[in-house]
Amino acid sequence: MGKVYLIGAGPGAADLITVRGAQLLGMADVVLHDALVEPDMLGYAPHARKIAVGKRCGRRSTAQQFINKQIVDAALAHEVVVRLKGGDPMLFGRADEEMRALEEAGIEYEVVPGITAALAAASSLKRSLTLRGVARSVAFATKSRAADTDEIREHVNADSLVFYMGRDSAPEIAQQLIDAGRPAETPVAIVEACTTARERTLTLTLEALAMGEAQQWLDAAQPSLLMIGDAFAEREASKRLIESEPADANADGAAPRAAGFLNAA
Amino acid sequence: MGKVYLIGAGPGAADLITVRGAQLLGMADVVLHDALVEPDMLGYAPHARKIAVGKRCGRRSTAQQFINKQIVDAALAHEVVVRLKGGDPMLFGRADEEMRALEEAGIEYEVVPGITAALAAASSLKRSLTLRGVARSVAFATKSRAADTDEIREHVNADSLVFYMGRDSAPEIAQQLIDAGRPAETPVAIVEACTTARERTLTLTLEALAMGEAQQWLDAAQPSLLMIGDAFAEREASKRLIESEPADANADGAAPRAAGFLNAA
Repeated sequence: MGKVYLIGAGPGAADLITVRGAQLLGMADVVLHDALVEPDMLGYAPHARKIAVGKRCGRRSTAQQFINKQIVDAALAHEVVVRLKGGDPMLFGRADEEMRALEEAGIEYEVVPGITAALAAASSLKRSLTLRGVARSVAFATKSRAADTDEIREHVNADSLVFYMGRDSAPEIAQQLIDAGRPAETPVAIVEACTTARERTLTLTLEALAMGEAQQWLDAAQPSLLMIGDAFAEREASKRLIESEPADANADGAAPRAAGFLNAA
Repeated sequence: MGKVYLIGAGPGAADLITVRGAQLLGMADVVLHDALVEPDMLGYAPHARKIAVGKRCGRRSTAQQFINKQIVDAALAHEVVVRLKGGDPMLFGRADEEMRALEEAGIEYEVVPGITAALAAASSLKRSLTLRGVARSVAFATKSRAADTDEIREHVNADSLVFYMGRDSAPEIAQQLIDAGRPAETPVAIVEACTTARERTLTLTLEALAMGEAQQWLDAAQPSLLMIGDAFAEREASKRLIESEPADANADGAAPRAAGFLNAA
């Protein structure tokens, strides 16, 4: 019986996989990879049989069960099996179901983390997700389609917010945040196909996002991230924010803020 | 004038840096690295002059200004300068101040993302940060020492919570979350020195954390992460949580939940 490596491929660019991930790909007999994994990445595994278990966001669990079975079957027939997942396996990656299937089949496995898109997008934008005096926390979230309307307002809050798979519901997400008290002029950056040759970015305000101004720009064929918060302002604007903080602010954290559900600008 | 690469070293293990990061280290003339970067990692840069700009969490901004100056000075004298930062530069990494200094000096730079500790810790634990039916969002936060007591309750919320640099305030963080309505039996995993030879984990409940039961176990010389939420339960327990969700739950998202500020178990 073989061993399975659940490996995060990272955000897109082939050289943003980890060294460990690339080395394991080089030893792999079989690679089962997501549709979101860039073709370049498979060059690390010249000798492996590659199997696309293509499933983009939003398919039903029977598809996931079939992937689970493919992984288990591969481990019964080969020594080194790589399950290569876009981004990081542990963040919006459905890795749990695959780990459970491997445990039930008594197959040994390891998980190798990957760069999640939000980190790579922050690098591309040259904007920190957390920023002294401005943002001390960041949340990564998705908007489910089984939407209870107030889910964002009630369940997710942090100084910086990053929504994965938020393209279609972007105006709704933005409106919920404004309704919850986040300022209409809050900066938003949208990063599409992060770190690939197709990467594009759009910056606008939360209000403009709520009005649907990004929807025409967005490409339904590409993954995109919505990044919302003062940390994503132009550098000069964020500098003004930092300098307007009270002088007694802690050097490492943000200044104390007014009480209230959402952070003030 | 040279070019500066702000590179995330990742969580600890040398082979968890990205391929791009390792390749740039191999080309570096100078490497300015954090105290948190493991010595092994510097093996990727055999020809570079290595300068420790050691600063662990919680030093004042003059130290940061000195680091900024060292980076700028290095770029004025060398072609390829690497600023190697523990974890990811854009998350609790103070990269903004370094980027600003480089921009003010007119020096070209790029940012290369790294695996942040929370992702690596989830891989070590074999627990997803997000989990279908259980956790649709995750927040990464720190607790400032300029503490307004209710900051967590008011400013950070997500299904899964990860606190960086939370060792000393762990009981206070846990108590605030309980006061805000998170169940006392919520699972907590603490991961120390993630992915290094010194890695250790402790699992307990939020109530036990609030009672200070982890404080003796924690090693002040090691970085640690507090991971809080139902997604960090034992696999069998999380399976029961998933199966107890209503059958009409969206396949990809969590089920609709009761309204309220914090998520119910």
